[in-house]
Amino acid sequence: MSTSPKAALTVAEAVARARTAALRLAVLSDDLRRAALLAAADALQLRSPEILAANERDCAAAEQLTEGQRLSPAMFKRLQVDERGTAAMAAQVREVAALPDPLGRELGITALDDDLTLHKVTCPLGVAAIIFESRPDVIPQVAALALRSGNAVLLKGGREAEQTNTALVAIWCDALAQFPEIPANAITLLHTRQDIEELLRLDDGIDLIIPRGSEQFVRYIKAHSRVPVLGHGAGICHVYVDGAADLKKAVDVAFDSKVQYPAACNAAETLLIHQDVAAAFLPEMLARFEAAGVEVRGCPRTQALSGGRPVLPATEADWSTEYSDLIISIKIVGSFEEAVEHVNRWGSKHTESIVTEDAKAAAEFMLRVDAAGVYHNVSTRFADGFRYGLGAELGISTGKLHARGPVGLEGLTTYKYRLVGNGHTVASYIAGERTFKHRPLK
Amino acid sequence: MSTSPKAALTVAEAVARARTAALRLAVLSDDLRRAALLAAADALQLRSPEILAANERDCAAAEQLTEGQRLSPAMFKRLQVDERGTAAMAAQVREVAALPDPLGRELGITALDDDLTLHKVTCPLGVAAIIFESRPDVIPQVAALALRSGNAVLLKGGREAEQTNTALVAIWCDALAQFPEIPANAITLLHTRQDIEELLRLDDGIDLIIPRGSEQFVRYIKAHSRVPVLGHGAGICHVYVDGAADLKKAVDVAFDSKVQYPAACNAAETLLIHQDVAAAFLPEMLARFEAAGVEVRGCPRTQALSGGRPVLPATEADWSTEYSDLIISIKIVGSFEEAVEHVNRWGSKHTESIVTEDAKAAAEFMLRVDAAGVYHNVSTRFADGFRYGLGAELGISTGKLHARGPVGLEGLTTYKYRLVGNGHTVASYIAGERTFKHRPLK
Repeated sequence: MSTSPKAALTVAEAVARARTAALRLAVLSDDLRRAALLAAADALQLRSPEILAANERDCAAAEQLTEGQRLSPAMFKRLQVDERGTAAMAAQVREVAALPDPLGRELGITALDDDLTLHKVTCPLGVAAIIFESRPDVIPQVAALALRSGNAVLLKGGREAEQTNTALVAIWCDALAQFPEIPANAITLLHTRQDIEELLRLDDGIDLIIPRGSEQFVRYIKAHSRVPVLGHGAGICHVYVDGAADLKKAVDVAFDSKVQYPAACNAAETLLIHQDVAAAFLPEMLARFEAAGVEVRGCPRTQALSGGRPVLPATEADWSTEYSDLIISIKIVGSFEEAVEHVNRWGSKHTESIVTEDAKAAAEFMLRVDAAGVYHNVSTRFADGFRYGLGAELGISTGKLHARGPVGLEGLTTYKYRLVGNGHTVASYIAGERTFKHRPLK
Repeated sequence: MSTSPKAALTVAEAVARARTAALRLAVLSDDLRRAALLAAADALQLRSPEILAANERDCAAAEQLTEGQRLSPAMFKRLQVDERGTAAMAAQVREVAALPDPLGRELGITALDDDLTLHKVTCPLGVAAIIFESRPDVIPQVAALALRSGNAVLLKGGREAEQTNTALVAIWCDALAQFPEIPANAITLLHTRQDIEELLRLDDGIDLIIPRGSEQFVRYIKAHSRVPVLGHGAGICHVYVDGAADLKKAVDVAFDSKVQYPAACNAAETLLIHQDVAAAFLPEMLARFEAAGVEVRGCPRTQALSGGRPVLPATEADWSTEYSDLIISIKIVGSFEEAVEHVNRWGSKHTESIVTEDAKAAAEFMLRVDAAGVYHNVSTRFADGFRYGLGAELGISTGKLHARGPVGLEGLTTYKYRLVGNGHTVASYIAGERTFKHRPLK
């Protein structure tokens, strides 16, 4: 039940075992899945010292890396786990346990005919693989989501967190071992970079791959995978300050969208301003940005209205750049129309916000902008599974199929059609002896 | 507005225009989309002679093909359109018009906080491409589904139906031209085989590709596409006659599943029989199969119980073969357990049926079998969009993501999150000035 015997398995074997495990996980009761998660949460808290000791070994090893291999300060910080971190992991697992059961939900019921009833019912996907960098807290989060939704899961973390990850999975497996109904292969930790290459080819055995890491990392996985990938590409988000905006709200929303956490994919990269309010809006906005150390790159009209504050010239390349940093581009637009067109042309279909007091303009923007999130008078930084109330986040999807935007438990479910009859044959409908009624019951 | 000027466009240009058209289609009212479909249906009926004349030219050309290029009789039959065929096309379009609006449906509403409300709302995918063989009736069907759901569509049919397809698209475009809100590039007919290769690479511009044709054809598209593909692989479906089956129903269901239309992907390939009822069930079943000219391949126990009727020996290869013909393999299983394991091992996750009067066994089968359709006392042949009441069928999916089983309008929609606030910033939640409420409103 620990990870060591599995290390000797090939990835194909591990996937085959996960598939068998998935069939058993799919039939576990809601009570049992919840009880198992609470047991795992308790174990994470109780055995916190083991996690911290393993993490210390990882951190010490990271510190001894030579110049070229060394982790960036940001990556090193994400690797570190402290007592508060393990408590947060346990709390996260308990939150997932408390979510309503995602399985067996009736999405629709139709009486096709007398005694012939079709039920569309949610069920688990089967086997998911998560490939992630640094942050060991991905493990309890994703393991919890997978078990809550009756899925088997394969995990491949970064080498820099190997000790921490191994300790976390061992604790998780030990906690689940007290439930004889839960198969040992519900969760599998993979260990080498080669394992990833093999994972990406196993489209027969894996239902979904979720990469969590930098944009380049996600792009690499997407380009090389035969298995469907749920993840996000670029995060080029806009805040549009409409002609009918409340300018105080506009400054707050734009500032939060850029500054609150500029490295996030849901941070804004470009601010669009309607020409009617640009002169009134820019002084306060530029002052706030300057005070926060934000580099501003503006169109010529923005530069002209800068009031002496520093505004570098923006080029077309700025409209398609995700800075992930304290840099923002600003463009003054001649009309609402121009703003919508700019967003649909340059945005990455992630999250787009309009600031306006004109309800009609807001509705129009939210209808016409093609993005996973369309916001009115709200910071783009709200695009997040926790903030949306999904309990935990599997990832954010900028694709349109299956799941879009922040994805929680639902991303790990699909549905099946259950059809219950009484010896019904198609031949009798073709012969005209029977006709369909198609009465929706739900 | 006809197809000829577009023939000169590159595929990439056609896709770019379709994307622009999609943004306009997404905002059309339900009334307008319905009215346009009814106008198109009328035009198909009114201009039926043009369709029939074009089809006669295609059929004449097909008849003049040399031996090696000649269409199979089945393909030729699918190519032919008669007066009844054009009436059926018009009726189909009217049925799609009558379906409830798939757009703007609120899938969920959550109050994240005071004055901060999240709406999960359905919207169109954007641009879909359909690649199909022979049957020209795919055009009005798919064009109707696309317009009903606010999507732009690219169509590539087989060369053998070129004249008919061109006439159908021209009539469709002419009918839509009276609605100035509908962009001319809502529908585009592509003309060459090279167009397909290019389509498959354009994952930036196309949201979904739907291949309709033989299994090899679908497999080819799946293997070569960077764009997500919705389609079905093999259709290896089972009927399991449980120990508690009503044997009269079992014979009817198994016979219909195999014989009613053996070329369909939802026809049964293997019949599993519980050993307790095999001796009582087989004589009547084998007699029915023999009378219908069905070749039976059985396990040794089936052969032993054949009562002199012809049963060829089944090999392991039979469990994984889609005959698409009047051939069935039969296996006698020792237990319910063995039946479920056989289905999960050899089935293609398409449609699986149990025949039993034991409600518990039925529920267990439907829970444990991993397939798009799990049936109780019903022929597998019901796995079809029309029979499910979806109005029309985009295709059948054996994948688990996005859409599963017979797929109608829903397959062409996704959702967006609309978040409406009043100047809310994430910083105020991080600072603890505000806390999330996450109150589900729907």
